[in-house]
Amino acid sequence: MDMTSPIALPKSEALALRYGPVAMPDAGPWNDHIALLLSHRSVRGYRPDALPPGTLETLVAAAQSAATSSNMQTWSVISVSDPATKAEFAKISNTQKHIEQCPLFLVWLADLSRNDRLGTAEGVQQMEVMPYLETFLVAAVDAAMAAQNAVVAAESLGLATVYIGAMRNDPQRVAELLGLPPGVMGVFGLCVGYAAPEVLSEVKPRLSQPAVLFHGTYGNPEEPALRAAYDAQMADFSQRNGMGPDSWTKRVLSRMGRLAGMSGREKLSGILHAMGFPLR
Amino acid sequence: MDMTSPIALPKSEALALRYGPVAMPDAGPWNDHIALLLSHRSVRGYRPDALPPGTLETLVAAAQSAATSSNMQTWSVISVSDPATKAEFAKISNTQKHIEQCPLFLVWLADLSRNDRLGTAEGVQQMEVMPYLETFLVAAVDAAMAAQNAVVAAESLGLATVYIGAMRNDPQRVAELLGLPPGVMGVFGLCVGYAAPEVLSEVKPRLSQPAVLFHGTYGNPEEPALRAAYDAQMADFSQRNGMGPDSWTKRVLSRMGRLAGMSGREKLSGILHAMGFPLR
Repeated sequence: MDMTSPIALPKSEALALRYGPVAMPDAGPWNDHIALLLSHRSVRGYRPDALPPGTLETLVAAAQSAATSSNMQTWSVISVSDPATKAEFAKISNTQKHIEQCPLFLVWLADLSRNDRLGTAEGVQQMEVMPYLETFLVAAVDAAMAAQNAVVAAESLGLATVYIGAMRNDPQRVAELLGLPPGVMGVFGLCVGYAAPEVLSEVKPRLSQPAVLFHGTYGNPEEPALRAAYDAQMADFSQRNGMGPDSWTKRVLSRMGRLAGMSGREKLSGILHAMGFPLR
Repeated sequence: MDMTSPIALPKSEALALRYGPVAMPDAGPWNDHIALLLSHRSVRGYRPDALPPGTLETLVAAAQSAATSSNMQTWSVISVSDPATKAEFAKISNTQKHIEQCPLFLVWLADLSRNDRLGTAEGVQQMEVMPYLETFLVAAVDAAMAAQNAVVAAESLGLATVYIGAMRNDPQRVAELLGLPPGVMGVFGLCVGYAAPEVLSEVKPRLSQPAVLFHGTYGNPEEPALRAAYDAQMADFSQRNGMGPDSWTKRVLSRMGRLAGMSGREKLSGILHAMGFPLR
């Protein structure tokens, strides 16, 4: 248990890991909650150990405590434990084996159907806001905020997590496996469990704050220099963590430059139409 | 300072506030981090007091520590302190005066433009994934996860917050005020500050867990009964907090039943097209 408890690093150490020693922001207040947030790493390998009883309910209580637009609560979550179903999810996700390893696999849903059923039960012919892009966006954003609270709660318990965006490689197959009605979409998955010690890597550095945080109006003329500095840092990080020398620029070009980087997700708009989201 | 420090409630008290005494989930592990998450309330009134130096940088370090799809980091954030600009944002948001009151107002951006500029700088004619719905969705989801981490960090410091979804009432005006380039959209705002004591209300109850958490496949045949129980609870909550007797069912019907509930956001799809998001 102690091995897996989160370690609350002092401010300067935590910031040095996240930004590198030369790009540390001039952060102010600090406490153990913030140290926990800074310590996040996505983990792609799990021990088979079961979670303590009631862990799922604790995580969902944290998730439901996140803000939700106008209290509409247009998200749901499904916990998946059947090994055959998890194997199917791994297949959808370009064989991410950690989906099969982790003791708790959650699929977070943008869910307009519950409030639509409410309308039907109350005799409303048509819940007029349902077909709009805005309504889908709110559902996806609220699912994301809820899931992020669950991640923070899990990590506070010494558990590791990784989001699985690859659920969107085949949203219709996800819907089939989970019995989703129209107006419900699996936005992403989430693995939860105890990290396998051999996969633990360092905290991943991010772009320095002047590249993403602006004051008053958008943009920073120093962006090219900030990117070059981050490239150098990520190349070091990659090499230290056995990933080969790879700059962020190269990663962005490879992931966003060509359609092949999308693993079929370029079809999402049409698929969502078929799943009951006209996205008007 | 002590007045505004978050109070870590014991598990049973925190769950009773969030779910009501009769619908408490059988939650397991518990700690102060989880108590903090459970204590969230959106606050719509602020004292003018300034934040400690470096608070913004602390919150953004927390935000950047959230997961981001493939480390693409397709979000940015702008801090707005100019009173005239804040007044304009309040106007966009149906006169939410807390935007003008709060010492720190943040606009969270789905930002494809930084990685698009990277492509241009590297001589790539067209970053092929940019025009797709999937790419916009990832940017909005990543902005939401980042912002949620900032909210948790803020609340851990005794600060209050409220998300401002009404930024989407007029995304083009938001873009104008912030000088956003094409491919950048203000997904939501966030007020941060010290709560004005007179606006503090109870933690808002949510639907009970069996209504939103499923095991293996979607749905719960008890949904109508769960909703009726929540309606009764929300009517009590509303009355106790001086909001008049209002069930959740009535709120959903009024917010989602008629287009008027959207405050113009039914136009979002067309507006995003014009702002450089073809959403293919």
